[in-house]
Amino acid sequence: MALIVQKFGGTSVGSTERIKNVAKRVARWRAQGHDIIVVPSAMSGETNRLIGLAREIAAEPDLRELDVIASTGEQVTIGLLALAMHAEGLKAKSYTGAQVRVLTDSTFSKARILQIDDARIRADLEQGFVVVVAGFQGADADGNITTLGRGGSDTSAVALAAALGADECQIYTDVDGVYTTDPRVVPEARKLDTITFEEMLEMASLGSKVLQIRSVEFAGKYKVKLRVLSSFEDEGEGTLITVEEDKRMEQPIISGIAFSRDEAKLTVLGVPDRPGIAYQILGPVADANIDIDMIIQNVGRDGTTDFSFTVNRADYNKTLGVLETVKGHIGAREIVGDKHICKVSAVGVGMRSHPGVASSMFRALAEEGINLKMISTSEIKISVVIDEKYLELAVRTLHKTFDLDKAE
Amino acid sequence: MALIVQKFGGTSVGSTERIKNVAKRVARWRAQGHDIIVVPSAMSGETNRLIGLAREIAAEPDLRELDVIASTGEQVTIGLLALAMHAEGLKAKSYTGAQVRVLTDSTFSKARILQIDDARIRADLEQGFVVVVAGFQGADADGNITTLGRGGSDTSAVALAAALGADECQIYTDVDGVYTTDPRVVPEARKLDTITFEEMLEMASLGSKVLQIRSVEFAGKYKVKLRVLSSFEDEGEGTLITVEEDKRMEQPIISGIAFSRDEAKLTVLGVPDRPGIAYQILGPVADANIDIDMIIQNVGRDGTTDFSFTVNRADYNKTLGVLETVKGHIGAREIVGDKHICKVSAVGVGMRSHPGVASSMFRALAEEGINLKMISTSEIKISVVIDEKYLELAVRTLHKTFDLDKAE
Repeated sequence: MALIVQKFGGTSVGSTERIKNVAKRVARWRAQGHDIIVVPSAMSGETNRLIGLAREIAAEPDLRELDVIASTGEQVTIGLLALAMHAEGLKAKSYTGAQVRVLTDSTFSKARILQIDDARIRADLEQGFVVVVAGFQGADADGNITTLGRGGSDTSAVALAAALGADECQIYTDVDGVYTTDPRVVPEARKLDTITFEEMLEMASLGSKVLQIRSVEFAGKYKVKLRVLSSFEDEGEGTLITVEEDKRMEQPIISGIAFSRDEAKLTVLGVPDRPGIAYQILGPVADANIDIDMIIQNVGRDGTTDFSFTVNRADYNKTLGVLETVKGHIGAREIVGDKHICKVSAVGVGMRSHPGVASSMFRALAEEGINLKMISTSEIKISVVIDEKYLELAVRTLHKTFDLDKAE
Repeated sequence: MALIVQKFGGTSVGSTERIKNVAKRVARWRAQGHDIIVVPSAMSGETNRLIGLAREIAAEPDLRELDVIASTGEQVTIGLLALAMHAEGLKAKSYTGAQVRVLTDSTFSKARILQIDDARIRADLEQGFVVVVAGFQGADADGNITTLGRGGSDTSAVALAAALGADECQIYTDVDGVYTTDPRVVPEARKLDTITFEEMLEMASLGSKVLQIRSVEFAGKYKVKLRVLSSFEDEGEGTLITVEEDKRMEQPIISGIAFSRDEAKLTVLGVPDRPGIAYQILGPVADANIDIDMIIQNVGRDGTTDFSFTVNRADYNKTLGVLETVKGHIGAREIVGDKHICKVSAVGVGMRSHPGVASSMFRALAEEGINLKMISTSEIKISVVIDEKYLELAVRTLHKTFDLDKAE
């Protein structure tokens, strides 16, 4: 008998029929004697509907009030799920984040979990209840309702699993696990049985949107056993996200190929090469709430350097505007940009012990005539920025180059 | 400068446009220097939508979970209203019932308010905030979310006004006040400037659905000055519901004619005339959760009596079933019933000091050929049960008989 936290996303609870199916699934786990905590998202579309209402009133709504509104989506789901479990003959009880309580800081709409009071949940579990806790939300020290930001239900589930010392945290999604790459791009993509937290972090941040990245960080930090499963298939073990590296002798060098389409690149040309210049450029960009991804600065010559970075394509024009202002201040020569780029990355803990991964990657892409516009590496990842029209070709090529289409 | 509680019903906040209008109205009161607490209902249709979702899952949903679900309707409105007030340049802050907190008992779906903690609200008012509190909801001593039952937002508003010692509690509805009778039946019906709590109670319980009856009781008990106003017209003083009787010399004998269409009458014939028989009949009816309205027992003859009462028409068949069982136990002769009846009442504190009201009423109805099936009286009300086809005729006749169409 184990204690299991099960998180169901918006699609999995998208209708009352689907909510009934979730209850049936929980009943099967319960019948095996497990203690279950269920963490649902809002029904799909509901959070957008609620935020849409708020935006009809205010283009930039006060975030405290937005959280009051948005948190109701999950509150409806927990009640409906508890009812569906009653219909399956289970004892079940729902709690909002504030009721638990999930204590967060006061950063409305992007709150961080500080602490979880497990007393109520433990008492209910001991009495044989399935406990249903609203994901995505909590309350600050003053009792104000907070939300954790988009995808925060994953984080709620992992945090609950950590607080209660759960044996496993299962994330039910509309895919049946983590794949070597997107099967829509490479039909030969394979589901991975296991992946390390570090790899998952790189995969997630690079656009494999299976899990919210914060939840993976959280799971890694608190050593929560995390498993991604399909909410629509009853079979399958999904993908286990582990703390330890694969212990097999012949571990794969590369675990997956991640990619991100919606990228844009900006370069400040002729930047005076002096200390503090990176901050002078990126400070104003960050102040404008623009997330920066890759950053590259080439060695200077003639006392100047070129400074490049990538942002989400939606932020491209806004970023250009900021940089035009910055240009004058720092005395840079010119701003150039490219909206038609994408990023492709090879990810794998195996590359730590296998030199030559980068050169294999670059050779494979060169043989296909794909020009590299930017290169960035970390310990377990090599990313390249290329013209977006080559995205599919690059992903397929790398998938094959690193033998990802072959069985483990 | 006064402290005013303003309650807005579901129609008044039925769209984001209407919510903006409410905010504008609040801003005008605020500009006059008043402190304002706003208590909204859920957007019209929303509570039904939420309960509908619950019923898709369970025909008889667990009431604790139903309250978790249903309470989100008001929670959305308070957030939206606070945002709309910000757009009007007001400082505003929203609270759920649990946050305030509005402490209730644990009778889920029909909870009673036990106590209101006014600390947060007072602190916010002192800092110049308009405080927006979700109507219809609270939390019990264990922090479980509760709702007060249909129309409970009126009660929330009055309870808040009582707890904070507000100068006035304004109930904004889709009518501009309390009328002498329903203007759809009698076009000459007049809006009353004032009405006493007692009269309002009789009017409300008899089908003039302007205010929830519990809120009127509450207002009477705690001497809250209550005013009914239109949320769609900016002019007008509405109707003030007062503790004191009208102080004018020539006060009206009758303040209004109330009526109720959905009535049904049941009679147990040949009941043994012995102590305890009323309880033996009505106990099982009450146990079946059927609300009983009028009760009449005629004097007995031959050791038996006839026992009649009225119920909501929707409960007619259920009540018949209960009575058939009871009949055997108590040795009654027969059960007869009539689904095609209605109730018409003349209400007025003036009848205390004016004998002869009943006879005027009966004569007027007799002159129209309307047969009286039941009669029931209280200190300030005379009700008759008649064939439902005579409803409009009876109401018009009585409205004229008591000069209600003439200006006060």
